[in-house]
Amino acid sequence: MDEAVSRRRLFGAAGVGAAAAVGLAAAVSTSSTGGDNHSASSTGGGMVYPFRGNHQAGIATPAQDRLHFASYDVTTSRREDLVALLQDWTAAAERMTQGLGAGPYGPVSGPYAAPPDDTGEALGLPPSGLTITFGVGPSLFRDSAGQDRFGLADRQPAALRRLPHFPGDQLEDKRSDGDLCIQACADDPQVAVHAIRNLSRIAFGRAAIRWSQLGFGRTSSTSTTQATPRNLFGFKDGTANLKAEDPSLLDKDVWVGPESDQSWLVGGSYLVARRISMTIETWDRQSLQEQETVIGRTKGEGAPLSGGTEFTAPDFSLQGRGNLPLIATESHVSMAHPDHNEGRQMLRRGYNFVDGTDALGRLDAGLFFLAFVTDPRTHYIPMQTKLARSDLLSEYLVHTGSALFAVPPGIAEGEYVGQGLFSG
Amino acid sequence: MDEAVSRRRLFGAAGVGAAAAVGLAAAVSTSSTGGDNHSASSTGGGMVYPFRGNHQAGIATPAQDRLHFASYDVTTSRREDLVALLQDWTAAAERMTQGLGAGPYGPVSGPYAAPPDDTGEALGLPPSGLTITFGVGPSLFRDSAGQDRFGLADRQPAALRRLPHFPGDQLEDKRSDGDLCIQACADDPQVAVHAIRNLSRIAFGRAAIRWSQLGFGRTSSTSTTQATPRNLFGFKDGTANLKAEDPSLLDKDVWVGPESDQSWLVGGSYLVARRISMTIETWDRQSLQEQETVIGRTKGEGAPLSGGTEFTAPDFSLQGRGNLPLIATESHVSMAHPDHNEGRQMLRRGYNFVDGTDALGRLDAGLFFLAFVTDPRTHYIPMQTKLARSDLLSEYLVHTGSALFAVPPGIAEGEYVGQGLFSG
Repeated sequence: MDEAVSRRRLFGAAGVGAAAAVGLAAAVSTSSTGGDNHSASSTGGGMVYPFRGNHQAGIATPAQDRLHFASYDVTTSRREDLVALLQDWTAAAERMTQGLGAGPYGPVSGPYAAPPDDTGEALGLPPSGLTITFGVGPSLFRDSAGQDRFGLADRQPAALRRLPHFPGDQLEDKRSDGDLCIQACADDPQVAVHAIRNLSRIAFGRAAIRWSQLGFGRTSSTSTTQATPRNLFGFKDGTANLKAEDPSLLDKDVWVGPESDQSWLVGGSYLVARRISMTIETWDRQSLQEQETVIGRTKGEGAPLSGGTEFTAPDFSLQGRGNLPLIATESHVSMAHPDHNEGRQMLRRGYNFVDGTDALGRLDAGLFFLAFVTDPRTHYIPMQTKLARSDLLSEYLVHTGSALFAVPPGIAEGEYVGQGLFSG
Repeated sequence: MDEAVSRRRLFGAAGVGAAAAVGLAAAVSTSSTGGDNHSASSTGGGMVYPFRGNHQAGIATPAQDRLHFASYDVTTSRREDLVALLQDWTAAAERMTQGLGAGPYGPVSGPYAAPPDDTGEALGLPPSGLTITFGVGPSLFRDSAGQDRFGLADRQPAALRRLPHFPGDQLEDKRSDGDLCIQACADDPQVAVHAIRNLSRIAFGRAAIRWSQLGFGRTSSTSTTQATPRNLFGFKDGTANLKAEDPSLLDKDVWVGPESDQSWLVGGSYLVARRISMTIETWDRQSLQEQETVIGRTKGEGAPLSGGTEFTAPDFSLQGRGNLPLIATESHVSMAHPDHNEGRQMLRRGYNFVDGTDALGRLDAGLFFLAFVTDPRTHYIPMQTKLARSDLLSEYLVHTGSALFAVPPGIAEGEYVGQGLFSG
């Protein structure tokens, strides 16, 4: 595939008629099999990431700037409909990540008397580094009464259970859970929105959006090539995040290994999604000293309060006046540090969000926390239990949404996402 | 000011202590007086537009990619508080548009025991073409009982009245009206959000957000240098928009001239804000033919159905089979065309929005319509009345929010935005 491909070139002056055929051939030729998802081709306006590989893209991929995340309820009770949906989603997702329309005709070709198979708002936009990542929730396997929904009950991983209620949680049903999820990340919000919209359109009659969330300004760099972004508390977020350049840490902390109770999930991961509202107005009235004490780092440089620069390891033993530790024991950096969590790390890939204002005129804003982990029972639940109880930062946070998904591994040519769930 | 200035450089390795002083001097030196707002300096990561000039920036400025718009209720009853608020907003807005913090100390300097005078999430981000544009609503002058609120009743322009209820309007109170408004546009959403957040923080005790709206992927190019973007119907939007390169059209259709009944508004404009929800799922099930008939243009190229390319003038007299016009009389392009609206044009500056999903799982998405006009009584109300009644596109649109603001002219050195309202 021409690395500089863009929708504009495919559908622009060259004529729309031939574009679909050209595009399809191009898409096939880029579909690397069995390779890694980390390599990508760069274009004038956007990266292109391969859709197929050992792992799904959108996990170890350097975090893009914009997010549209959607959770779905499956509305069919037929197993074959669910399989067909995953096949249709795979085909459309592969096309869109390569900068093509959602369907083979695209937005402006095909039968004039039929609805276009792409909605068109991404026409002329570059691929923008789009990745589309699929997950399955616990409710896909068993309904709330515990009944097997699609003959998949014996395929449910033991770790794939609804997350527990943590202290202080104020979860909203319409921001939580779901049978399926799609994470669409891109450097252009219109490209991410276009992906979710078309996949939702394709799902009609089989699955419907349960909730969705937009995000911007990724809060965690996932690559050593990225500067550390800031969250809406104004602090750098993700300084100590696990980076994609360290495959041994990815194997230890992110990917599901062969010891899994479900072979279909090996090479996949678990995705924890938490909508965390921030009490912005309260935070903004705290002194700089209080803010830095709560976080345990300086606000400007992001250095630990024990000294050094951003990437200096925090020294939790250093004491200051009155023999108090320079980094407060219940500061966020201390509570969340791997040294205080049995060495366990998460690959965080969250985004800031602002959903307008609430009824009192306060910003409805915060962090849409996304983390990929090898097992939520060891890598998320213990730490969040501790943070919810003791982290000084918890005073300024309210968790309003929660979901857990299993993320199937990547696929080879000819396969569809989640295929292992139905075969073998 | 160094054209390549960025917050990162100001607050980064050079040391935070001196940054506030350096930055303040820099900001003063860029404040052109009496000049035009169209010129700007470009940097690696972001344009810098002058804050002062004949007109407020953010109107004729080439439309940036991201929007955060906020409407405020004034919560004080004291005229001097209102004046002080506008003065404080002016100072903070000027600083932020120049890539500095909202206050003189910035996010990480100043007294350690006091809240920082900037919230910090834009630290390290370039100015990103930020413009901040202020407006005043009819309710600032008289309350709902018609009483003079701040001694400004005789300054209320005759054209500044609540917009009428148009056919089909389903307006929500919490998405409509307001005493004051701020439009923050930038090429980075975090920069636009940072501006609204800090201005809201500064307003504490004097004004509170009534509603706010985020947007992306501007739907109207306002400069001949910009490609025409697409709205969420997948069509190019703004092909025939008034462009900033034509000052005679701006004088005729956008700026308030000396014939105004209020001298303080000369050089200003009126801002019409309408939140227009799109019935996305219904639209997506229409045939390409139906979609193009409704719009009156082709979906790919954006050419009028009478032939030619995007910028070919539509020929409404051309007929096809059965002597039917090639462009349907009630198509959107026909109904909205200046030839059918007494030659009147608007400077549209709207943005797409997606606010998640509604209770039925449908995308809560559409167009946040923003238009600057010389007089809403001639340049918006007649056309919208006609569109609401007859435009084929109306079937797919629901107006859920509405507001009208008067936008004061630009200011010279030493003045504050809206100063003319209180003096002379």
